[in-house]
Formats: sequence, structure tokens, C-alpha cells
Amino acid sequence: MISIAIVGTGNVGTHLFKAFYEVKDVEVSIINSRKLDTLPKSDLTIIAVADDAIAEVSSNISNSFVVHTSGSVPMNALQNLTSKGVFYPLQSFSKEKEVNFSGIPFCLEAENSKDLSKLERLVSLLGGKIYHINSEQRKRIHIAAVFANNFTNHMYAMANDICKEHDIPFDILHPLIAETSEKIKTMNPLEAQTGPAIRDDQKTIQNHLHLLNESQKEMYLKLTASIQHYGKKL
Amino acid sequence: MISIAIVGTGNVGTHLFKAFYEVKDVEVSIINSRKLDTLPKSDLTIIAVADDAIAEVSSNISNSFVVHTSGSVPMNALQNLTSKGVFYPLQSFSKEKEVNFSGIPFCLEAENSKDLSKLERLVSLLGGKIYHINSEQRKRIHIAAVFANNFTNHMYAMANDICKEHDIPFDILHPLIAETSEKIKTMNPLEAQTGPAIRDDQKTIQNHLHLLNESQKEMYLKLTASIQHYGKKL
Repeated sequence: MISIAIVGTGNVGTHLFKAFYEVKDVEVSIINSRKLDTLPKSDLTIIAVADDAIAEVSSNISNSFVVHTSGSVPMNALQNLTSKGVFYPLQSFSKEKEVNFSGIPFCLEAENSKDLSKLERLVSLLGGKIYHINSEQRKRIHIAAVFANNFTNHMYAMANDICKEHDIPFDILHPLIAETSEKIKTMNPLEAQTGPAIRDDQKTIQNHLHLLNESQKEMYLKLTASIQHYGKKL
Repeated sequence: MISIAIVGTGNVGTHLFKAFYEVKDVEVSIINSRKLDTLPKSDLTIIAVADDAIAEVSSNISNSFVVHTSGSVPMNALQNLTSKGVFYPLQSFSKEKEVNFSGIPFCLEAENSKDLSKLERLVSLLGGKIYHINSEQRKRIHIAAVFANNFTNHMYAMANDICKEHDIPFDILHPLIAETSEKIKTMNPLEAQTGPAIRDDQKTIQNHLHLLNESQKEMYLKLTASIQHYGKKL
């Protein structure tokens, strides 16, 4: 039996709590970060609060092993005097949507191999995927995730806008979006690149530019140039 | 029984041929566009050649009903003297990968309702999804698809690059990419937007910018500004 205390009742904290609650060999509790005086003694304390609050919250915790769940905060930002670590699930969480941690990557970091094993065991219990990632790498993963998630979603939003302007149902793009995201599981995205930009199909590019408004046009040109720049690496 | 002749042996032509070949009520043949003299009489002739070649190829066809499969060419670019139409499957096709047309959107256009019904029936036989789309709308769908597919894939390529630079396996992002593309099936992408840009989290944004090279930085700033611009529509 391993006991876990989660500090922070936001998306990540709540979803982790629910997931650990279902695991037989784990005893889990969750508390609001403003009620640290009620924190139970636990084998592992998981701080799941806003990045800015991690240092302060951790400085008030005396439990033996304390980790945070942030993509961009270094392990050493933790101010507890006991063991430190990182337990960062790389996924986008929504309040409303159930999270299945099966297959979800966890970026783990710890000060010694015994603590690391502890974190590994917990990932296994959740069915997640273990990655050993140091604080420098984790920062970069966080940026890469901005491209792969936030910026990608913005491409969907721009596509949605173009559809809406011309009474086209956005769902017509769903299968294409699904295929695009599937493809990179088996193919390097550099090699998977298709479309007028990589072909330098100027006729199609000019046709498209004529039909876009100023801000769409600016984005189209920028992305087209970037795709062509990347294409030279092939 | 309906007879179909496909002109053009590229990706789209070949995949459509294979798919129709499996359908009981269809008799399908495929020919190279340079061998139009061997074109059999057919109920429907599908021109699946490069956009630039559609007009010329169609001008040499005397079969009764001729359609093309292009996203960006108007129906009236067809130069056959008989009936015209469009049969545009909205999906990204790779030579190597089998295509399952089940659930794939087909943008249909025809000069009369009888011809349109014929195309609808064929989409049904393939298990595809029927959309009535005029030539103006189709051009816009083609652009929206560039955003949802080509530009999205480029975001993956940039994320991949950031990972590679720091010895991070790109597959760590696969579940996040899958979740991002899943989310918009049930949520408007404008509302699904998360991340430092939409929160205007300047601290994280500045941290990220410090870690990027010049061209990555330029793209990050451009996309961040665009996300914030879109955010104002909410």
C-alpha cells in the first residue's frame, strides 16, 4: 500500500485523484492548497497547483517525498527540505472530460533511483507510459506541446472560420484532421508534409491568397514560407 | 449495374478504382490520361488528373457524364460537351496506405438532380458521407483543408524539431496530438483553445521565447498574436 496526498483541486489534481482512487494498492487524498494544515502524512505528496505557486506551497510541506506536475517548472524550484521529484502527465485535461491515463506519457524526475522507482510504479499502476526527462528537456517538451496542441488547435480554429464564412459545416474536415494526426504515428512529419507549399505550387498558392482576408493571408504566407524552409532539410 | 471509367492513375484515381472494384453493382475500369483513345463507354467518367490537365483531358471525352475529383477546380472548367459534375473526396491520400472510404466526405456537384442522385448513390456504395457543395464553397474547403492538414502537419514538424534538438522521443507527443484532434469533434475549436497564448500568460510566453531559435520564435509570436486576436471573438 502506498499513500498519496494531492495538493491542488484543479484539473490535473482532480483527474489524478479520481484515477488513483480506482487503484487497489493506493490510498489517496486531495486537499486545497490553502488548507495545507490539513495535509495528511503520506509516502508521496503531489503538488498540482499553478506554476507560480509551486515554490511557496512546497516550502510549507514537511512530508518525505514531494513532486510537482508542471511541464515548465524545474524540479529544484520545489522548496521542501525532503526529497523532490517531478510527475508531469503530458496531456491536455478538460474539467468536463473523463481522463483515461492509460497510454499517457509521464515525464518523471527524481533525486535518486529509489524515488524514481516509486514514481515509475505509480505510472504503471495508472497504465501510463514512463519517460525519464530532466528539467531542461521538460521545458522543451512543454514548448513542443504548445506547437502540437495549442497552435494545432488554432489551425483548426482558422479552418473553422473559413468554413463558417461560406456556410460549410466544419465536420466535413473531421476525417481529414483525424487522418493528419494518425499519419505521424507511422511517418516523420517532415516526410508526411503534403500540399501546395511543399510542392511550391504557385498557381494554387496564389488562388488561395486571393480568397483570404488580410490576417488569414498573412498567416498563410508565413506558414507556407516556413514549410518551404523546412522542406530544404529533406 | 453502373459502369465507371476512371481517367488518371495517380493516388486518387488508383484508390477510387480499388474501392469501386470491391462494390458489387459497379463495373469499373481505369486508364492513363494519355491513352484516352482506349476509354470505354461508361455511365460515369471520373477524371482524376492534375488540376491543370482537367480542362484538356475533359475536352477529349465524349462519354455522357463526366466529373472531376479536384478541390479547387470549378465544375465549369470541364470542357466535355455532355453532362458535368464534381466528385471530390475530402481526404489526404498516400500511395502506400490503403484507403477506407467509409465515413469520408464527398463534395458533390452536378448540373441536374438526376446526375446528382447518381453521384450520391456511388458515395453510398463506398460508405462515404454526402455533402452538396458548390464550386465557390469547394474552393474554400480546399483552403480550410490546407490549414487543417498541411499547416497542422507543419506544427507537428516544428514540435518534432524541438524534440530532436533535445534528444526527446517525438512519440511522447502522440497522445497529446490524438487528444487535440479528438477534442474538436465535440467542441468548437475556438472554445477548445488552451495554453499560454489564450491565457495571455506572459511569463510562460517569455520563458518559451528565450528557448527558441529565430525562426521558431518568429512563428511562436505570430501564432500567439493570432490566437489572442481570435480570443477576442469569444
